[in-house]
Amino acid sequence: MAEPVASSHDLTGLYGLTDDLVRAAHDAIKVRDRAGLRALVAPLHAADLADLVQALSGHDREFLEDYLGGEWDPEVFVHLDEAVRDDLIEELGPAALARMVTGLESDDALELIEELDGADRQALLDRVPDGDRALYEAALGYPEDSAGRLMRREFAAVPAGWNVGQTIDYLRSDAQLPDAFYGLFVIGPDHHPLGVVMSSTLLRRQRIVPVVDIMDAAIKPIPAVTDQEEVAFLFRQYALVEAPVVDESGRLVGVITVDDVVDVIDEEHEEDILKLGGVQSDDLYEAVAETTRLRGSWLLANLATAIMASAVIGFFQAEIEKVVALAVLMPIVASMGGNAGTQTLTVAVRALAMKELTASNAARILGKEALVGGINGMVFAVLVGLVAYVWFSSLEIGLVIGAAMIINMIVASLAGLLIPLGLDRAGVDPALGSSVILTTVTDVVGFFCFLGLAVLILF
Amino acid sequence: MAEPVASSHDLTGLYGLTDDLVRAAHDAIKVRDRAGLRALVAPLHAADLADLVQALSGHDREFLEDYLGGEWDPEVFVHLDEAVRDDLIEELGPAALARMVTGLESDDALELIEELDGADRQALLDRVPDGDRALYEAALGYPEDSAGRLMRREFAAVPAGWNVGQTIDYLRSDAQLPDAFYGLFVIGPDHHPLGVVMSSTLLRRQRIVPVVDIMDAAIKPIPAVTDQEEVAFLFRQYALVEAPVVDESGRLVGVITVDDVVDVIDEEHEEDILKLGGVQSDDLYEAVAETTRLRGSWLLANLATAIMASAVIGFFQAEIEKVVALAVLMPIVASMGGNAGTQTLTVAVRALAMKELTASNAARILGKEALVGGINGMVFAVLVGLVAYVWFSSLEIGLVIGAAMIINMIVASLAGLLIPLGLDRAGVDPALGSSVILTTVTDVVGFFCFLGLAVLILF
Repeated sequence: MAEPVASSHDLTGLYGLTDDLVRAAHDAIKVRDRAGLRALVAPLHAADLADLVQALSGHDREFLEDYLGGEWDPEVFVHLDEAVRDDLIEELGPAALARMVTGLESDDALELIEELDGADRQALLDRVPDGDRALYEAALGYPEDSAGRLMRREFAAVPAGWNVGQTIDYLRSDAQLPDAFYGLFVIGPDHHPLGVVMSSTLLRRQRIVPVVDIMDAAIKPIPAVTDQEEVAFLFRQYALVEAPVVDESGRLVGVITVDDVVDVIDEEHEEDILKLGGVQSDDLYEAVAETTRLRGSWLLANLATAIMASAVIGFFQAEIEKVVALAVLMPIVASMGGNAGTQTLTVAVRALAMKELTASNAARILGKEALVGGINGMVFAVLVGLVAYVWFSSLEIGLVIGAAMIINMIVASLAGLLIPLGLDRAGVDPALGSSVILTTVTDVVGFFCFLGLAVLILF
Repeated sequence: MAEPVASSHDLTGLYGLTDDLVRAAHDAIKVRDRAGLRALVAPLHAADLADLVQALSGHDREFLEDYLGGEWDPEVFVHLDEAVRDDLIEELGPAALARMVTGLESDDALELIEELDGADRQALLDRVPDGDRALYEAALGYPEDSAGRLMRREFAAVPAGWNVGQTIDYLRSDAQLPDAFYGLFVIGPDHHPLGVVMSSTLLRRQRIVPVVDIMDAAIKPIPAVTDQEEVAFLFRQYALVEAPVVDESGRLVGVITVDDVVDVIDEEHEEDILKLGGVQSDDLYEAVAETTRLRGSWLLANLATAIMASAVIGFFQAEIEKVVALAVLMPIVASMGGNAGTQTLTVAVRALAMKELTASNAARILGKEALVGGINGMVFAVLVGLVAYVWFSSLEIGLVIGAAMIINMIVASLAGLLIPLGLDRAGVDPALGSSVILTTVTDVVGFFCFLGLAVLILF
């Protein structure tokens, strides 16, 4: 039945987990009220129950996990964050895990199996039914994050010679078909996909009409080895709802629907945003030790950068001792360069991910960025020059910081574009290393220009 | 017909625009070879043609636009970037735009109309057929970025009393129905949606079966005023393919399918990533003046921050004059704090967007972040303390920078979480202002701790 409907811009309270429910679960657990906990947990959608497991901490979570122990809904498992799930997989052991996997649809099951390492994976595969094992092993034969891993292997297809009536009779007779499907593929004698017929179209046509007459031939077959980011691009570019997946000889082997692609798009975006922020993976549910280690390696790279910038300052110790205003003002030049560079970098990384930054427009955008950096550099040179002049009553210091600002902001804008472009061309993820290289450039150039110009003009 | 299939991890050359094609178009335009240009452009998908328009610059783009002038495919228009499209809309004028809009599906047309301002919008609406105008005006009655704007108004629905046979007969007889649909809604006497039947299920059942027996009642009706980000959350959380949209009395008024949601998810992500990088909108195709202005306002906020940090340094001029090593080392403390804080900030902004950071787990995560910051602070305190000791042969300076590092990294970790949480609670987008506030905190605290401790210990 349809749920009651609130009139609100926000769906809180209508769908999803609420803070009130988390508190109620916490209270029920505190007094070991199993019946109360059941009443709270039973009506929850698997995705919301997974959120509840994650929202609870320490003993609360252990109690809930223990309580669910006998009756873990495999669907809940699929919705858990990887860090939380990995902990549970270790506790469960291969036999319980195999039961879980058998209760899942093939693509969800594959997602769990993929996460297991060599021996654990084999132990699990040994425990699932033969038919399922063959299917999983075939899927695991495709590269990680490829269309072959992403696709559903169950699909409906009919030969090109059939008409609507034959097709409907076949659909009624074959119990092996997936429960629900959108399109029905029409295949040639070599098993190549020729087009797709919507089931709604089949419903509305006479039995005698050949399927080739009502099929949509504008399909976009995807080779099974294609990387999932390319698959996401294809769905986004052409607003696809589903696409056939073909093997190296062009035979239809599976189908990808847009709802599978939503997860890929989310993953992609998460990677980009986290890497730009210097975080290697979503560590919200990761343990303290692991989080500290992962973030520490990034901070170490930044320490090297910061020491390099300090070394530049070190060259100018004698001058700073004489004019201490230099020490006061120098972070402004470095910081403004860093910010201007980050703006360009962010736009560039995003444009690369969306395939909007290519060899054919790179030169034009480089020119534009240099211009934007130069204009803003001049505007802020005047501003900061005035501030410095008023603060230290020195026209020379105002001129020095203004000139350094213009240079550093142009350099920053160019670096913000060239660094991700260079990394991308070198086959490195531009989101990953870009910002630490950029900061090195803007700090070193910022300090060197400012202090170097000061030496030329003030001394 | 199916296109030829390459065996590659990359779809370049198989689908989408290639750099070769852009170059060929550029060459054809240079020699005014209209036939050659036609041969290149004619086979392109609307989305790829839009990319070509965007990949060309200056006179090339004008020539192509002029060439397409008489025969702009409205679909191409939909795929253009907003900045490029806005320019064209002005050139075209309301009459040509009205012809364009009439050639589009209702949701694509609405997207164009939404972008127009008061007078332009009215001029356009006056020029479209009456039926379409009523439809657009009804849609525009819903809030911007709401489910009511996003939904398709054409859907298939049958009364709960019908059986499969009646339904199929109705589908065959009613030409008003959308060409293709996935599910067919079953509605109660009050026009509330009760469930959904897949058209593939209809195909496979006997005519006598009542639709209520084969419908899936686990639907999630969405109020039409719901914000599109909430809609995206719902689709993601429950892996939905489509959802009915209802008015304030719960009556079915439209349907949203997952492919519409993909655009929303992309927009959402783009906003988050760009705002974190200090860019207000995707300005890749924006003119230099506009880009400079938009980025400049962010840089101005950062200048205020940088000057504030410099003012802190200003308090300690006398000490820096005596021990110039302080000037050399102080950026390290500020920079490491900034980076550690940005890591926490990025995870927090992402978790808020994905609804994973809530009142019920905020305290736990705050404790974790403080611990991670403290541990990494200690590790890097030892490292940087040793560097400073060796560099300046002063144990005291090593101790001062080590202690300042620990304090600043704990403060940075807490600020990285509390700033976005506070903004979110205040109803402000946490991606927007967070990083400039964070930098202020880590710079000011970093410089103040380091120089302040130096005063206490060294003097």
